[in-house]
Parts: sequence; C-alpha cells; structure tokens
Amino acid sequence: MSRVIRVAGAQMGPTQKADSRSATLDRMIALLEQAAERGASLVVFPELAFTTFFPRWLLEDAELATYYETAMPNPETQPLFDRARALGVGFYVGYAEMTPQGERFNSSIIVAPDGAILGKYRKIHLPGSVEPRAGARFQQLEKRYFEYGDSGFPVFRADATWHGALMGMLICNDRRWPEAWRSLALQGMELLCVGYNSAAYDPNGGDTESAGLRTFHSKLVAQANAYMNACWAVAVAKAGDEDGSGLVGGSCIVDPNGVIVAEAQTLGDEVIVADCDLDMCVQGKTKMFNFEAHRRPQWYRRITEQVGVTPPDGDAA
Amino acid sequence: MSRVIRVAGAQMGPTQKADSRSATLDRMIALLEQAAERGASLVVFPELAFTTFFPRWLLEDAELATYYETAMPNPETQPLFDRARALGVGFYVGYAEMTPQGERFNSSIIVAPDGAILGKYRKIHLPGSVEPRAGARFQQLEKRYFEYGDSGFPVFRADATWHGALMGMLICNDRRWPEAWRSLALQGMELLCVGYNSAAYDPNGGDTESAGLRTFHSKLVAQANAYMNACWAVAVAKAGDEDGSGLVGGSCIVDPNGVIVAEAQTLGDEVIVADCDLDMCVQGKTKMFNFEAHRRPQWYRRITEQVGVTPPDGDAA
Repeated sequence: MSRVIRVAGAQMGPTQKADSRSATLDRMIALLEQAAERGASLVVFPELAFTTFFPRWLLEDAELATYYETAMPNPETQPLFDRARALGVGFYVGYAEMTPQGERFNSSIIVAPDGAILGKYRKIHLPGSVEPRAGARFQQLEKRYFEYGDSGFPVFRADATWHGALMGMLICNDRRWPEAWRSLALQGMELLCVGYNSAAYDPNGGDTESAGLRTFHSKLVAQANAYMNACWAVAVAKAGDEDGSGLVGGSCIVDPNGVIVAEAQTLGDEVIVADCDLDMCVQGKTKMFNFEAHRRPQWYRRITEQVGVTPPDGDAA
Repeated sequence: MSRVIRVAGAQMGPTQKADSRSATLDRMIALLEQAAERGASLVVFPELAFTTFFPRWLLEDAELATYYETAMPNPETQPLFDRARALGVGFYVGYAEMTPQGERFNSSIIVAPDGAILGKYRKIHLPGSVEPRAGARFQQLEKRYFEYGDSGFPVFRADATWHGALMGMLICNDRRWPEAWRSLALQGMELLCVGYNSAAYDPNGGDTESAGLRTFHSKLVAQANAYMNACWAVAVAKAGDEDGSGLVGGSCIVDPNGVIVAEAQTLGDEVIVADCDLDMCVQGKTKMFNFEAHRRPQWYRRITEQVGVTPPDGDAA
C-alpha cells in the first residue's frame, strides 16, 4: 500500500508595505492554480502570507490593526478559499489573527480540499522583543504584536482524500525548536507544514551570519527534525527584499529520511512539488524512532521542569 | 576573548573478534600520539573502543564477560591513560562497564589532561532487543547486554586547561534523540563528545537504507543538534567491516552553527582535528536559542508525560 499526497510549496517573493491586499491575494491564487495544474492536492503558503512581515516596524495602533484578520475566511481572503475549493485543493496558510476578545496571535490553518478548516495552530515560539530597539531602523516585535500560542501543538487527522494523514503545523521560528516537532510526533504526525519569514541578514547591520548560513540553518532544521520524527516536512518561505529588509528562501519538501526532494531555486513566487508517500514514515516510526521501545522520559525532566539554563555547579548561566 | 580547545576525533577502523586487546590498545595509543603531535589537548575515541562491537552476537556468559571492564582504568587500559597524561592530553572513550554489583552499562568517560576522570556517562538510548532474532546471522543485543543508563545526562565543568568548558557526553544512538542533547544544553553544555558504532547496512540482508544514507543521517543529527543547542559536537565512529558486519564512518567535528569543520575521509584509523572556540557558542545561546527568553515548557509536557505515540483521536498508534 502507499498513501501518496502530491504536495506543493508555494513560496512567495516579497510583499512590500505599499502592495495592495488584492494584489497579494491574486499572486496567491496564481500560485494555487500552478500547484493544481501540477496535480497537487495540498498547497503550503508562508507565515503571514497575506501581508508584508509587519513586525519589523513599530506601528501606530490604527495602522497595526489593518494587518490582522478578525475572521478567516473573510471577504478579502474568500476568493482564495473559493478557488481552492473549486480546484479540489487544500492549503496551509499563515495569518495574523485578531480574536473577538481582542487577543492577537500569529496563526495558521489547514483547509481541506472540501473547503472545511481541518485545524488551526497559534505560534508558540515567538522571537523578537516586546520593547522596540531604540534607534534601530528595523525591529522584530513579534513578542509585542502577538500573544504566545495558547493551544499547544495539535495534530489533525485528515479524511480519506488525504489518506487519513496525521498533520501538524508549525510557524517560522518554531521549526528550530525540537520540542515542537517532538510534541507533534508524539501524536503520530506524518506530515508537517511550516511557513516562515526568516531574515537573510541583520537589516540594522553588524551581522555575523550570512544569508547562505541562514538558509543552511533553515534547511538543516527541517531535514533533521523530519528525520528524527519520521515525518514529511514542507517548509515554505516568504523570500526576498521587503522594503529594504531581506528574507531567505530555501523552501523545501523533506522526506522522512531528512532528504530534500524538492527545493526552491529563486527568492520569488515559485511552486515546488513532490509526491509524499505517508507510508514512508512507517520504517522510522517502527524501527529507529519507535518511541515506545526506545524513549526514556524519566531522564528528560529538565525539558519541562526548567525554562533557561541551570549550570551543573549552580553558577550563574 | 576566545576559549579555544584543539580537539581531535580519533576514528577507529574495524576491530575483529580475533584481534588482541593489546593490539587494539596499541592502535589507540598511536592515534593519541598523532593527535598530540597535531596539538590536540582532547581526543575523542569511539563507543566500545577497546573491543569489537560484540552485541552483534549471542554469546555464552563466559565469553561475554571478557568484553566488560570491571574498573577503569585497569591493567589492560592503563597504558592509554599513562601515555595521555605524559602527553598532557585528555580523552573521551567508550567502554563496556561491569560494576562491582554485576550491573552492566554501555559507558563513556572524559579523562582530563592531568589524568583525572572528569566524568562518566551511561548510555540511555539502547537500541536493539533483549531477545535474539531467531535464525539471524547478526544480532543487535544492546538491550540484553546492558542496563539502561541510570545517571541521566550530566554536564561536567572542565578546569582552566580546557577554559572551564561545560562538557557533555552521549553514546551512539543517543545522538539521534533531541531530548538527550536538550537535557545537556539546559545545563549550558558547550562541547558534546559522542562515539558510535553504527551499521552501514543490514548485515542480515533485506536492506532499505544505503551506507550513504546512514552516513548522511549520522552527520545530519550531529549538525542540527549542535546548531539547535548552540554547542560544538565531536562525533567519532568505529568504522569499516567487523567480521562481515559493516559500520559507517563519517566522524566529524561540528561548530555551533551546525557546520562540519573537520571530517574523516576513510573507514580506517584516522585523526581529524579542529580548533573549537567555546565562545562561538555565545551567539546562539544568547540570541536565537536563548532558552530563558524563548522556551515554552508548559507546552512540552507530552515529552515527559508519555513514552510512545498517542494519536489525536485516540485510535491505536
């Protein structure tokens, strides 16, 4: 038996602050259509896909509010949902969520090919800071603009259209945290979707990490965590230069051996496609990474009992 | 400031069942001397370095007993300790430990340049099985021949000779388990030593993973876990063909960016060397992987509260 889902990563090039919402949605629909033409039934879009990466600026409340979605779908995003349903294609997409209670989250959803929302995830590993860096041209204010995700790491079971796949979501920085992957894999996750906006360099200068190194890091964590959790991973960038701040590309689809099977070549709008056989997860899940047989949680307690570093001899970290 | 330790990986080629203990020790001393000549002050040897990988056979008790060390050092291994101390070189080495109470562990130690044992670790992630596979030419009986490690994941602080390095140890299969690395990194680990004996193919046939893929896996987990824990990693193989059963090589030294800075080219006895600046860990530990600022343990509870997989909807795993 094989359980193949043809998956597309819909990497997006930059979205400038001045770009209209409708122009961005048109690009997303064009990517969706390309993916459908190539036979994909699941299309993965980036984090905060409908807008520029706005946490790079300290914004007035009125302007800031324009970046959040108070419902999903909503009149602006409905055309993407409609086109996907018409094509029989599902998708993962990241967006800034504003709840009726006024809570703000960096969220993602998976929409099934029939148009139903299969599940939602709210980003847990928020990078950046609450307070702006004085005098800096660019900020990273995710900790200011979003609450920490409050719903853990849920796994969702798809219906027969996607062969009952066990699907998980992460968002951007989450993918660098092995705890996040493991929390999903402990629910049997077979396919992980993650969108990201990751800096290609320090836009304020004084950098120590090249764009090449940062792209390497992005692929490395997708590959190793896919392998160590015996799952497929689809990692998709918003890439390129947004108003003078660069984002890495490197979107990729990774198999349960940690091998990249499809990879973006540009920093622009680009569709990558691969056939993901969920049954390729079986070997890892039953042998090398048979959790029941090999994990020893009694020795992992520091992972949940402490947050930061506690040196062995009690010195300050 | 920089805190540089010149580290050597002393990859060992195969050790056949018929090889004498003293011949193997002579090879280890030769590797130690090569490393010292190249200026290394820390030499990392493989797992179970003094013998062949004996868990591949179902052995009678009398023969089995010959593979364990009832003390470390002991008269057979003392020459390695003596030569290292004379050269002012410390080392990590793996061995089969038999306690006075008759408990058996797959263990490793780090010996400081002054000859003192800095710390000991007992392998927690034992692969293989308790019961032999009927009719198989080769076994993997680590779960039969060893108790699970009973001392957690300790980190040891070296003295000024090694710039006060915070050092951790893992053994072979442990390196594929992100929980193990994180448990060490939560104590501030800066340098991880891990020796291994990893199969290059299924010696009983019917294989699905090539030696190349297995070597890739070995490097991938060292690279990604070094990056995600902002530490140096020195991963060292016993490699080549032992009595008809193949072991991968791929020994490597990895920096805190996950970049391989030295790598073995053979499947034989081979020394690799790199200057490891412990201060290269600072960027990762204070920015991207600042645990105190970014970890969210309240959402990691599955990692310690369950062993195997619990599917989201309660179906059988």
